[in-house]
Amino acid sequence: MRRLDYSLYLVTDRALSRGRTIGDIVKAAVAGGVTCVQLREKEASTRSFIAHARLLLAQLQPVGIPLIINDRLDVALTVGADGVHLGQQDMEITDARRLAPAGFIIGISAESVEDAVRAQDRGADYIGISPVYATPTKKDTAPPLGLKGIRRIRAAVRLPLVGIGGIREDNAAAVIAAGADGVAVVSALVAADCPRTAAAALKQCITLARQKGSSD
Amino acid sequence: MRRLDYSLYLVTDRALSRGRTIGDIVKAAVAGGVTCVQLREKEASTRSFIAHARLLLAQLQPVGIPLIINDRLDVALTVGADGVHLGQQDMEITDARRLAPAGFIIGISAESVEDAVRAQDRGADYIGISPVYATPTKKDTAPPLGLKGIRRIRAAVRLPLVGIGGIREDNAAAVIAAGADGVAVVSALVAADCPRTAAAALKQCITLARQKGSSD
Repeated sequence: MRRLDYSLYLVTDRALSRGRTIGDIVKAAVAGGVTCVQLREKEASTRSFIAHARLLLAQLQPVGIPLIINDRLDVALTVGADGVHLGQQDMEITDARRLAPAGFIIGISAESVEDAVRAQDRGADYIGISPVYATPTKKDTAPPLGLKGIRRIRAAVRLPLVGIGGIREDNAAAVIAAGADGVAVVSALVAADCPRTAAAALKQCITLARQKGSSD
Repeated sequence: MRRLDYSLYLVTDRALSRGRTIGDIVKAAVAGGVTCVQLREKEASTRSFIAHARLLLAQLQPVGIPLIINDRLDVALTVGADGVHLGQQDMEITDARRLAPAGFIIGISAESVEDAVRAQDRGADYIGISPVYATPTKKDTAPPLGLKGIRRIRAAVRLPLVGIGGIREDNAAAVIAAGADGVAVVSALVAADCPRTAAAALKQCITLARQKGSSD
């Protein structure tokens, strides 16, 4: 199984980008230390989603940062992205695995220990624990799982875990300390005044939390 | 190239179904003479779209009626549908062909002679001429092409042509007479009091128009 560096995982959101292009935000965030990018386009047509994905892939491949596509396996396969991220209303992982090439990354959103165990059993590459904290970015999310939820999922599965939902500079270290391998953020980077500075600050929190964890 | 019977082509629309299930409407319409079904789900989640497509495929395969999926190649490949129908804002046909298995049907919506010629050059299996007449079913469509548009496209391409947009019992024959191989309908069947009777009436118009055409 291919294993990515999920330390600081940026999930895009065009509506939060304050007039800047996704490409510019991603470029700055990667310069600041983002290790993985997920392109999420809930409103775009298929053609437009593919065009955006191709642009982003051309930008990320030369710098060795993986591109994950939200929900749409057709888009991911068309552009040759590194993987797809599937929520509980998206394609079943078993269907996606059947259509995807070898080495293709499939991430699954888990809102409970049961979701996480099922995703691992069915062959997920990583799990997005969602939401860790309350977040205004996504509607209709499950109740926040909190640090306790991360610890419970960490105890139940061996896959890489990425926390998402309401994670910022002031709570990222706690998410890592609770057992997550990385933190995923939307607004903390997409809506930041300076995505590069914001990414660097988050990355430092994650690095320090890991050092502290390994020295405890 | 696999060639379907496009004579009477039903395109689904959940919002127009007046509380009936798509399965019940399709069953009645097929009993009345529908030869091809396209599942269109513009609002559904990927998981729900796949579930609907599986149900419809299980219903159509035993009676030998092909199922085409609107826009979403991922859904079509997942369930093993006969093909996909792509609009001008959907995936490019060249991308779809690369991902699809041999014999997979790809239909393209053409709003002009140029669209139709390009679709043929790129390997489409059939062309949906859209819209033939003004229609309240779809928003943001191009100006109606009319019978003149069908004749011009018929003269320019050899592919099967299916007219769509505002086609009903009183104008279906003219669409066939102008050179279409079939007519596609949404509201004329989905919103009909009795989809079976409505399908049978449309089918008769098509059959008579063909007999007249071949005896002229």
